Amino acid sequence: MRSPKGERSRARLIAATGELLQRQGYHATGLADIVSASEAPRGSLYFYFPGGKEELACVALREAGEAWRARIEAEIAGAPDLAAAVGAVCQLLARELEASDFKLGCPLATVALEAAADSDRVRRTCEEHFRGWEDSIAARLIAAGAERTRAREMATFTLSALEGALLLCKVKRDTSPLRDTGRMLAALVAMAS
Amino acid sequence: MRSPKGERSRARLIAATGELLQRQGYHATGLADIVSASEAPRGSLYFYFPGGKEELACVALREAGEAWRARIEAEIAGAPDLAAAVGAVCQLLARELEASDFKLGCPLATVALEAAADSDRVRRTCEEHFRGWEDSIAARLIAAGAERTRAREMATFTLSALEGALLLCKVKRDTSPLRDTGRMLAALVAMAS
Repeated sequence: MRSPKGERSRARLIAATGELLQRQGYHATGLADIVSASEAPRGSLYFYFPGGKEELACVALREAGEAWRARIEAEIAGAPDLAAAVGAVCQLLARELEASDFKLGCPLATVALEAAADSDRVRRTCEEHFRGWEDSIAARLIAAGAERTRAREMATFTLSALEGALLLCKVKRDTSPLRDTGRMLAALVAMAS
Repeated sequence: MRSPKGERSRARLIAATGELLQRQGYHATGLADIVSASEAPRGSLYFYFPGGKEELACVALREAGEAWRARIEAEIAGAPDLAAAVGAVCQLLARELEASDFKLGCPLATVALEAAADSDRVRRTCEEHFRGWEDSIAARLIAAGAERTRAREMATFTLSALEGALLLCKVKRDTSPLRDTGRMLAALVAMAS
């Protein structure tokens, strides 16, 4: 059984790892950085994550992905239709980038690109996350009247465009790629549904 | 003046760095890896690149970006129209991913995500590369009849969708995101031009 104190150390390790991965990626994030950022006792890392960095990273990516999902789903739930939802999501992502001085983008994308080829465990964690988004975008398009195959294709395309736009915003230190992408996607989604 | 032997060492350092950055990103690529992969004398690294890894990375990213551009431009030149060109580029990118067992995607994207927030020099190099693509896509759309503002928006959107699709393909170890994106973009480009 975990003690409340141990539980807090575990939660701090996960949160610190999630933020370091989002900010700088997998390879730049060493165990010493994680211990220092989390202020958790070093021993707790191996106690809770005997698989070390790879195991901790997978748990952290999953939690960070879920936290993002909850915030994005809240934006979607508040929008009157799918086109408006796409616009609202792009605005949320743009605000997030600006608030972090363009340091924090998609919590999984950096790790997905640099570590997917090295660690199959990390790759699968990222794959599950992105597949979850494709499923949920496709389900919404289908509910709005889109044909199933077309809805899946459109969902993959939407996710691609958003991930690419986040990358371009980070590189340019400018949110206009997300705004352009939001307008284009909103028009497409309105046509497809 | 550079000796022919020195010139070869310099070229080998740049090529090895470009491939390491494409495969694993900036942080995972140490100077020792570069020296070992290039088989160049260690001293030549600091002789030709007194700014060390950051300087070498910027030169390597620029050269890798140019090499990719040349191959992609050749595909575009062989296509009868813009929609066909988009399809041909997506097929080239998909073949490239498959041939490298999904290890080599966009030569700049990984570094753009992980190092853009740390090194302004690296960020600017990536920004120039992506801006070059936006300019060249926009110019083609304008030549095909698109209005200027709409062409720029569409160019940013096209580049976003392609970069995001490359990311999803790498994570899924499957080229269908590029194929879906290619079909959607070809239809959009045909409408916009």
